[in-house]
Amino acid sequence: MGKVAIVMGSTSDLPVMEEAVTILKEFGIEVDIDIVSAHRTPDKLFDFSKNAHKNGYSVIIAGAGGAAHLPGMVASLTPLPVIGVPVKSSNSIDGWDSILSILQMPGGVPVATVALNGAKNAGILAAQILGSADKAILNQVIAYKESLKEKVIRSAKVLRSKK
Amino acid sequence: MGKVAIVMGSTSDLPVMEEAVTILKEFGIEVDIDIVSAHRTPDKLFDFSKNAHKNGYSVIIAGAGGAAHLPGMVASLTPLPVIGVPVKSSNSIDGWDSILSILQMPGGVPVATVALNGAKNAGILAAQILGSADKAILNQVIAYKESLKEKVIRSAKVLRSKK
Amino acid sequence: MGKVAIVMGSTSDLPVMEEAVTILKEFGIEVDIDIVSAHRTPDKLFDFSKNAHKNGYSVIIAGAGGAAHLPGMVASLTPLPVIGVPVKSSNSIDGWDSILSILQMPGGVPVATVALNGAKNAGILAAQILGSADKAILNQVIAYKESLKEKVIRSAKVLRSKK
Amino acid sequence: MGKVAIVMGSTSDLPVMEEAVTILKEFGIEVDIDIVSAHRTPDKLFDFSKNAHKNGYSVIIAGAGGAAHLPGMVASLTPLPVIGVPVKSSNSIDGWDSILSILQMPGGVPVATVALNGAKNAGILAAQILGSADKAILNQVIAYKESLKEKVIRSAKVLRSKK
Amino acid sequence: MGKVAIVMGSTSDLPVMEEAVTILKEFGIEVDIDIVSAHRTPDKLFDFSKNAHKNGYSVIIAGAGGAAHLPGMVASLTPLPVIGVPVKSSNSIDGWDSILSILQMPGGVPVATVALNGAKNAGILAAQILGSADKAILNQVIAYKESLKEKVIRSAKVLRSKK
Amino acid sequence: MGKVAIVMGSTSDLPVMEEAVTILKEFGIEVDIDIVSAHRTPDKLFDFSKNAHKNGYSVIIAGAGGAAHLPGMVASLTPLPVIGVPVKSSNSIDGWDSILSILQMPGGVPVATVALNGAKNAGILAAQILGSADKAILNQVIAYKESLKEKVIRSAKVLRSKK
Amino acid sequence: MGKVAIVMGSTSDLPVMEEAVTILKEFGIEVDIDIVSAHRTPDKLFDFSKNAHKNGYSVIIAGAGGAAHLPGMVASLTPLPVIGVPVKSSNSIDGWDSILSILQMPGGVPVATVALNGAKNAGILAAQILGSADKAILNQVIAYKESLKEKVIRSAKVLRSKK
Amino acid sequence: MGKVAIVMGSTSDLPVMEEAVTILKEFGIEVDIDIVSAHRTPDKLFDFSKNAHKNGYSVIIAGAGGAAHLPGMVASLTPLPVIGVPVKSSNSIDGWDSILSILQMPGGVPVATVALNGAKNAGILAAQILGSADKAILNQVIAYKESLKEKVIRSAKVLRSKK
Repeated sequence: MGKVAIVMGSTSDLPVMEEAVTILKEFGIEVDIDIVSAHRTPDKLFDFSKNAHKNGYSVIIAGAGGAAHLPGMVASLTPLPVIGVPVKSSNSIDGWDSILSILQMPGGVPVATVALNGAKNAGILAAQILGSADKAILNQVIAYKESLKEKVIRSAKVLRSKK
Repeated sequence: MGKVAIVMGSTSDLPVMEEAVTILKEFGIEVDIDIVSAHRTPDKLFDFSKNAHKNGYSVIIAGAGGAAHLPGMVASLTPLPVIGVPVKSSNSIDGWDSILSILQMPGGVPVATVALNGAKNAGILAAQILGSADKAILNQVIAYKESLKEKVIRSAKVLRSKK
Repeated sequence: MGKVAIVMGSTSDLPVMEEAVTILKEFGIEVDIDIVSAHRTPDKLFDFSKNAHKNGYSVIIAGAGGAAHLPGMVASLTPLPVIGVPVKSSNSIDGWDSILSILQMPGGVPVATVALNGAKNAGILAAQILGSADKAILNQVIAYKESLKEKVIRSAKVLRSKK
Repeated sequence: MGKVAIVMGSTSDLPVMEEAVTILKEFGIEVDIDIVSAHRTPDKLFDFSKNAHKNGYSVIIAGAGGAAHLPGMVASLTPLPVIGVPVKSSNSIDGWDSILSILQMPGGVPVATVALNGAKNAGILAAQILGSADKAILNQVIAYKESLKEKVIRSAKVLRSKK
Repeated sequence: MGKVAIVMGSTSDLPVMEEAVTILKEFGIEVDIDIVSAHRTPDKLFDFSKNAHKNGYSVIIAGAGGAAHLPGMVASLTPLPVIGVPVKSSNSIDGWDSILSILQMPGGVPVATVALNGAKNAGILAAQILGSADKAILNQVIAYKESLKEKVIRSAKVLRSKK
Repeated sequence: MGKVAIVMGSTSDLPVMEEAVTILKEFGIEVDIDIVSAHRTPDKLFDFSKNAHKNGYSVIIAGAGGAAHLPGMVASLTPLPVIGVPVKSSNSIDGWDSILSILQMPGGVPVATVALNGAKNAGILAAQILGSADKAILNQVIAYKESLKEKVIRSAKVLRSKK
Repeated sequence: MGKVAIVMGSTSDLPVMEEAVTILKEFGIEVDIDIVSAHRTPDKLFDFSKNAHKNGYSVIIAGAGGAAHLPGMVASLTPLPVIGVPVKSSNSIDGWDSILSILQMPGGVPVATVALNGAKNAGILAAQILGSADKAILNQVIAYKESLKEKVIRSAKVLRSKK
Repeated sequence: MGKVAIVMGSTSDLPVMEEAVTILKEFGIEVDIDIVSAHRTPDKLFDFSKNAHKNGYSVIIAGAGGAAHLPGMVASLTPLPVIGVPVKSSNSIDGWDSILSILQMPGGVPVATVALNGAKNAGILAAQILGSADKAILNQVIAYKESLKEKVIRSAKVLRSKK
């Protein structure tokens, strides 16, 4: 089973990105986490991205804020699917800069973009990608979706009982 | 090897969505294409989405415009990874409605969103997802990226020779 | 006299959506409230929406945030008028995603959209819809509007007396 | 059965607003159409709006562009449900001004807003409002939705046969 | 010398609108202040606006938030110059709704729009309008601008002395 | 009676700004027109603005596009009321840059902003400003508004007769 | 005297970027032009950027559209000043993506951003940067600004003579 | 070696603009700081800008918020490179007004715009401009970039050791 690499541009992205780690560990999927700044450590970006598929990774999750170039640059250097998490950092313009910098990639180099600060969904998407070729993970995803449903059903019961 | 399902909300999305078909066929990946409207054929949406993983599909690409609910609703009903293509339809507000309706999914139900009208990238992303567990496709992706590079190198040569 | 069904995507929408309950009760209109998540309980969404007009409801109010698919999906499944309330949830981009996901419905499937967090107005609009065929409720709406006027007139008096 | 009044701010809104007339006539619902400018004929606005419920109307559809005050001002003067159609007029800023001027009404005075240029949906919504208290119209709405589904099913068949 | 009328849609606009009162009183210009809601007191809106030029007013300042129809509706009913103040009310979408509802008036009915929450500037603009035909006020405006300059010069001195 | 000065940043603004000239001439108000670029002729900007009130002008209309500094800079240099016209020039981002550069003036230096490309309204506003102290012009404004009304009434008649 | 390097992400950016070449040649400044795609030729990006200051360049101009990573990535790899030109490419969302991807760089790695499609200004800015340490170029910039002024003065004369 | 002039529209911009002072002093570059308001002290703006290149300055950094005309007006009056810092002031609309007023300069008069509140980057850019003609500063910029990299490398080590 493939591992998932989670990289982010700065430690300030960690509170958001940790949600991806948590959900992937719940799925029992192996995760490595690192800080790789497109703008401050471009050489590390190159080394990491060019070798990720040789180092046992199957999916890469990359989170960044502002003019968020990390996900797109990783995607330019790896053949693996890259999931981009736009982070609403302190210097961001309501998150629009992060979203557009990650989403609007040119033809040939996709980034699978999730919602603003959507690191949890990035983790689930990584699990779904692994699950598309791995029955066991697919079943876990099915079970996870079932658990989401049950939580809503329970909260609906509580609400109606209060009326 | 898994198949890719491509669905769209309306025939008017076809000119955009055909780019996904084309690129996937270039990769030799089997593709099925259908029209499934979240708002006009909700029953078909349910049938298709609930059974996609049982019908041999590994990845779903869903394109829609305006208040684009198709990708998110498919994602709510399947354990497979869903790639969403925001289509700039005629009644769209510069594409912002399509993008936000697809991208901003709640925690638990991700959609892998690509750029506005980015159906080609949706196809490549689907190939990368299949490739993350299939060496042969991974190598095709590597070769494809190499071909992108060569095209740029050639056009750069033409430009410099003209000076 | 018809009942009004109020559904929302999550308990976190309740503080906003309760204003619709309150105003409808002031009008003496019967209200049922439930949690129905388009993305987490799609089967419940189908059951609820397909049967609402058979279960004594005349109007449906649906509130949701982010990529808010609930109002539109309910509208796709019911012949009743559906009022959509865009909720500015915590993960929303200033409410734009909620608004555009609810407002920009394709031809054939309207959602009567009110202002961001405008659940009170959703309740009043539901009363007006019932009132369009029910003299007693129409007169209540007329009286309500009179009371709005009087409140402004009184506050204007207070302001001018302070000068 | 109640009539529907359709008003618009200017003859330039007619090409958009005519879609509401067409669909309502298809439903066999009686429609009156007029030009009422909030800014150029405020007295007419007052006369029309204050008396609409006395003149046999059950629902009002109001369309306007730019700083679109017509729907909201009609709503301030009538107890009837008012459906607002934001029109993307030539001097509009991509329609944002029309949408926000109609949608963001203050507490107490709702306007049921539909999509940009969504006059057709305004007509359908008016039918649904009438249908919420009129079995025959409700059944027409049900039949209409069925016809939408069939059109999609047919176009899907055509698409798949072409493959 | 003409008086200035300041009207606003709600008492919640008062903290913003009071800045217009303050600056006009500093210029020694007579001011009347009132609450006139376009949506809740449309009759008062009509009475006030139609008679303002007969009641000794030379300029009207109107402030409102959200779908802010007050300034435009006053402008439709009076031949006097109307200054509109977009107020960033609690239910506003970052102020964009207020700004566009006031600014984007159709040909024939202008509103002199100032910055978001710019009531102080509305007051100064009213003084400039009166001053365009009244030497004494014009000289006050000149003196006021001189005082602005001196304040900046002083703060610049303080800054440089701190270095 | 005071004259109106109309200045614009470039000859490319002329097709828009001419509407202000036309309407002011219809009111019989004297107009001077000139090109004054804040960025290319700053000295002319200074000379013009500092002396406008000494040269017989009562109101200044300034139109510009993109980062539109002309209206605000004129306003910083004259005690006269300045009306700003945001022009949607070819290099503008849908007009947002022009609007925000003119509207969002700091406290102390107002610009009376009209709609995007709203030069006609700028002319009418200038007439209203002159009219606030000049009975004859005020009466012309009243007559003008009457003519607007009649045009709408006539077009409404044509519409209804066609039904 | 230093040379200026102009790079762009794609040949489709050439019609915009050529304006930078033209104006720099008018200033007699040596220019090299090349295509360097951050996403398709990342190795070339590295080689070019890391060595630009060793290869006789003093300033780099980089233009790109969509999720425009080229200017920021060049800036992360060179100690030279980098001027970024947001290009409104065909797949851009009105240019907002290009602008925000280039402008909103994180602390430590600036890009000197000019207006959308503002390649001409990028060229002038490059000349000003060279001119800040080179009297001859500084004088050329002074002369250029004089010529801008004269052109406006002439067009103003033509306009006034036509009145 | 040239000096850098830092000007801002108001003392309220100082907390942001001080970051430019700090970083430039770290580079050992001489800095002068002053308050120059385009709208309140236009004469000072003219004096400062026209003479900056004669007073030993090589680069000008100008920061302002709202309708931020200072950077563009300085640029219109000096042949030196002008770096603009959009400040997110209290009356700004999320910073969009500041950004667009500074960025979207017309052809002929560039402003080198940095990110919202990006005064630190303005300082670094000024150093890079000086460094493009001064080996010693260039080497300082190279060393600074190396220090950025090391900080990221260290924080990455800390993160991985915590796992």
